Amino acid sequence: MRLSLRPSTQVADYPFVHRVRTRFAETDAMGVIHHGAYVAYLEEARAAFLEWLGHPYTEVRVDDGVDFSVLELYVHYRHPLRFGDEVEIAVGVDRVTRATFQVPYLLTVDGDVRSTAVTVHGSVDRDGRATRLPAWMSDVAQRAG
Amino acid sequence: MRLSLRPSTQVADYPFVHRVRTRFAETDAMGVIHHGAYVAYLEEARAAFLEWLGHPYTEVRVDDGVDFSVLELYVHYRHPLRFGDEVEIAVGVDRVTRATFQVPYLLTVDGDVRSTAVTVHGSVDRDGRATRLPAWMSDVAQRAG
Amino acid sequence: MRLSLRPSTQVADYPFVHRVRTRFAETDAMGVIHHGAYVAYLEEARAAFLEWLGHPYTEVRVDDGVDFSVLELYVHYRHPLRFGDEVEIAVGVDRVTRATFQVPYLLTVDGDVRSTAVTVHGSVDRDGRATRLPAWMSDVAQRAG
Amino acid sequence: MRLSLRPSTQVADYPFVHRVRTRFAETDAMGVIHHGAYVAYLEEARAAFLEWLGHPYTEVRVDDGVDFSVLELYVHYRHPLRFGDEVEIAVGVDRVTRATFQVPYLLTVDGDVRSTAVTVHGSVDRDGRATRLPAWMSDVAQRAG
Repeated sequence: MRLSLRPSTQVADYPFVHRVRTRFAETDAMGVIHHGAYVAYLEEARAAFLEWLGHPYTEVRVDDGVDFSVLELYVHYRHPLRFGDEVEIAVGVDRVTRATFQVPYLLTVDGDVRSTAVTVHGSVDRDGRATRLPAWMSDVAQRAG
Repeated sequence: MRLSLRPSTQVADYPFVHRVRTRFAETDAMGVIHHGAYVAYLEEARAAFLEWLGHPYTEVRVDDGVDFSVLELYVHYRHPLRFGDEVEIAVGVDRVTRATFQVPYLLTVDGDVRSTAVTVHGSVDRDGRATRLPAWMSDVAQRAG
Repeated sequence: MRLSLRPSTQVADYPFVHRVRTRFAETDAMGVIHHGAYVAYLEEARAAFLEWLGHPYTEVRVDDGVDFSVLELYVHYRHPLRFGDEVEIAVGVDRVTRATFQVPYLLTVDGDVRSTAVTVHGSVDRDGRATRLPAWMSDVAQRAG
Repeated sequence: MRLSLRPSTQVADYPFVHRVRTRFAETDAMGVIHHGAYVAYLEEARAAFLEWLGHPYTEVRVDDGVDFSVLELYVHYRHPLRFGDEVEIAVGVDRVTRATFQVPYLLTVDGDVRSTAVTVHGSVDRDGRATRLPAWMSDVAQRAG
């Protein structure tokens, strides 16, 4: 287990914020957003963050020839999301090693904390083997941290 | 538009039946299975049918070098599915041409008709171009019809 | 089967356009957006359209006490969508009866037609029984048509 | 953060095993099962476990009038799952308090460890407020542990 981050509950601690609108398809019979839907929200925020950093994920896969596979996932569900909520997902990057990095997330609606999360990623090559992170990721971590 | 099948509402008209148990993740805030979840049920039934025919989809992709991409989809929602339902999905194959075929579906719970559906498929090569169906598909259609 | 619309492939024929960005979670092993993901795109476009019309779906459920359940779904997949595509979903409403209406969709990326679709909806009450459409839907259909 | 379990990688340490077959809809453009799909697998295994314990989730919601909402989720992705894999999900229950419990999971394919996971659950009433666990849960934990 590599996951060691404690995601901040202060938006100001994150370099980037991405907005997602919840979908009706993501609700469940409890009348709230199903906990599984958050995984796609986190991924979408992460992709938007990479794009904002100048390294859209489609280019990472082609130019750098690597995938950032998900090694670990942690989500803390504090208060439910509902259909139609405009969710602000604050995102950053931290704990960058030679081949892995961690991403903290804060989900808020109108400033109200709904969830925090962390994903741990590893750089893998075309055959799924662990490989070195692209050089730009170290710079990103320094800027983002 | 190629879709021309009218799926029968009699289980006996289908060569194969696959069982799916609905998941809580597939419910929505109306308290029933979300209409989008049916697409995965149909696909799972189709894959089980191909496997039963001796042509598991993983082998089709490798041995025959083709994918059966979905060209058209039609679903008729007659009565809702609920969490925990054991759904019997009757499935067959029909209207086989050089490069396409149609798949009819009947979804029942305890003999009760819940939904009918049809998908139209085209054989495509590695680059996504339309190509001839594997030879065995014509035989399958004759057996299944 | 009530579905009778032929969705136009001209954006100008639709009163409203909603944008969706495809997610990596929605891709499949063929490297394109999975055909099942379109169902959530259509639903999101439909919800945005209702909101633009002044009748957000959350209010429809509370104020009018009805759900617009999906009775039928048809999707024509013309050219694949890929991860990161900005999809413009043109949407309208047509064939309004006492208790049902049909919604046509056109999905384009940079003006390129990728898919067309139709959903048929029925107004149902709290217990899932067919009921009259809210009065404003007839006006909407006239404006949108 | 309540999550404190370390899920065992020995199937024999779990009281129950549930089988899931991966779906093509759950693959992604990396050619493996998308990490988000695991959440539904865990939930399905949890529901099957409750049913085996004599407390199907549909009855829990009606008879006990409570939902077991997910408070925290942790997934460790060790080796990827692929389309068509028969996944054995070993599941148990542990750390039962007045209002919460933790569920460990071990995912294997042909005895090969693919993933471990933990979910933390809280008993909530109809209005989403934390409430006491049903009495039978304490007995379950004793039997399962």
